[in-house]
Amino acid sequence: MIDTPYLLFLGDAPDGLAAKVAQGIKDWRPEFAIGQYRMEGCKADMGLADMTLAEAKAAGAKTLVIGVANRGGVISPAWKKVLIEALEAGFDLASGLHNLLRDEADLSAVATAMGRSLHDVRVPSVQYPIANGVKRSGKRCLAVGTDCSVGKMYTALCMEREMRARGMNADFRATGQTGILITGGGVPLDAVIADFMAGSVEYLSPDNDADHWDLIEGQGSLFHVSYSGVTMALIHGGQPDALVLCHEPTRAHMRGLPDYQAPSLEALRDVALTMARVANPACVVTGISVNTQHMPEAEALAYLAEVETRMGLPATDPFRFGAEKLVDALDAI
Amino acid sequence: MIDTPYLLFLGDAPDGLAAKVAQGIKDWRPEFAIGQYRMEGCKADMGLADMTLAEAKAAGAKTLVIGVANRGGVISPAWKKVLIEALEAGFDLASGLHNLLRDEADLSAVATAMGRSLHDVRVPSVQYPIANGVKRSGKRCLAVGTDCSVGKMYTALCMEREMRARGMNADFRATGQTGILITGGGVPLDAVIADFMAGSVEYLSPDNDADHWDLIEGQGSLFHVSYSGVTMALIHGGQPDALVLCHEPTRAHMRGLPDYQAPSLEALRDVALTMARVANPACVVTGISVNTQHMPEAEALAYLAEVETRMGLPATDPFRFGAEKLVDALDAI
Repeated sequence: MIDTPYLLFLGDAPDGLAAKVAQGIKDWRPEFAIGQYRMEGCKADMGLADMTLAEAKAAGAKTLVIGVANRGGVISPAWKKVLIEALEAGFDLASGLHNLLRDEADLSAVATAMGRSLHDVRVPSVQYPIANGVKRSGKRCLAVGTDCSVGKMYTALCMEREMRARGMNADFRATGQTGILITGGGVPLDAVIADFMAGSVEYLSPDNDADHWDLIEGQGSLFHVSYSGVTMALIHGGQPDALVLCHEPTRAHMRGLPDYQAPSLEALRDVALTMARVANPACVVTGISVNTQHMPEAEALAYLAEVETRMGLPATDPFRFGAEKLVDALDAI
Repeated sequence: MIDTPYLLFLGDAPDGLAAKVAQGIKDWRPEFAIGQYRMEGCKADMGLADMTLAEAKAAGAKTLVIGVANRGGVISPAWKKVLIEALEAGFDLASGLHNLLRDEADLSAVATAMGRSLHDVRVPSVQYPIANGVKRSGKRCLAVGTDCSVGKMYTALCMEREMRARGMNADFRATGQTGILITGGGVPLDAVIADFMAGSVEYLSPDNDADHWDLIEGQGSLFHVSYSGVTMALIHGGQPDALVLCHEPTRAHMRGLPDYQAPSLEALRDVALTMARVANPACVVTGISVNTQHMPEAEALAYLAEVETRMGLPATDPFRFGAEKLVDALDAI
């Protein structure tokens, strides 16, 4: 686990989009976001207090999180200077960058000398077991998509927020680097070795209270040929009680695969449920989450109404219209 | 690729079963098996000529293959002595042991000094790409099982032998360590990082002649919760034209999973075909391979007849009764 709260490092971000990780932390774990650190020329702004390292330290921040993508895949000398100062000031560092902090000799040396941790969340820090398939206590919900990047993480986070607001016992369980940085822990599933994928999901979502819900972050899609194995491992390692189908209706083709079309929601429902029932015969599909960001509101609402009628399941865009329907359906299990 | 032919190292194997890898090489690539090297107390015998390192070298052997499991997961001093002598005599070494040759400082030093290769086939030696799903030329057959260890590798090897005997253009493509040692190359799929699994299968089975068949070694099962993600990646990375369903009818439960029962052949057919058609809409199920080793012959034949009638597909135990039916069905595509 990464020590919280965080100081969010925005570096010299060219725009707000580059600071997607920082935005996610600020949106979903505002209590972790003590302040932001911006370098000269930074064009991103999370609306948090701008702090020096010393000010953030005094305010209680434990970890400097790199909340921004780096240009050209290198950690620039200007960034490096700040990161070293942060280690010297007593911060841990956390990063989801492809190039690892631990591979930078100077950062590694200073971290060791100062007794600080470098969290590279793209690579597993745990030796995961092989999945044993034993039924676990507590309840689990998994978002599965017709494609990659259709809003599975946001769906789970929106549901977690709504459930906590209702006083329900619920935790988002991260399986990707952004989710891990947002919550401070999780499994970087796409970097796990094949034999241990399902086991890492069992590890992520252990036995829990009977009324507890894990909202497991989905990855990939059973219908996306590049990543379907990762999705399969989530379905079997997660042994979900509830599946939420996620869809983005305006895609011309599957993400990164020009020759492939997204499946229908019916096709996703049928195969995901068949596979989920191998690990949990009681699994049901409880709702549909549609990413309507590219649709005007009237069109989005009409589409959702059509899907509800056709599929006989509650359908919403939880980020745009709220997650109430999806949580009502979970609560009814 | 591992240089062939081989001298098969049987070490001090306590019985023939411990020398499963050597047996596989001798059965399926007899032309690679120049001779065997047995230490004092060895209880395994492949029926090959016993050779000293010098004799095997003179006979043209290029690689000493560790064809036996090691006891207690350590490479004993007695083994080590032979392995070092082999490197000094100019052999490469190849091993599918969990503990890697390269991690032994003395072996590593001698190999470097002599300019020899240490092939640890349990770990990938290639940086595989992410799968792109682009349709490849040539034809592909994949064996998929109701469970793990039901005879998928043997099915593919039996079919390859029958196809080559008919003059067909066919290659077994190994995805596990035994298959890699048998054929000299392949992908150790269970050790590949999640994001690259399907890409490694695309790499294993590239574009080929229009009449060429790749017989891709299956792994795991879509219904085995520990390894289903690996199977999924094979189905999508392999983009098979033909699926052969593999089954072992006498199992009391799924391998290693006491709480799980094997699915029916119908259930396997339906979900495997649905998933395979995502990557190759023309995919068909062409036959059924039943591992009847635990059934008397009359019972086995009756079972196969029943399966043929029920499923409307040719069914055989290709190891016991020949692979003709399965190859006839492929040839008819």
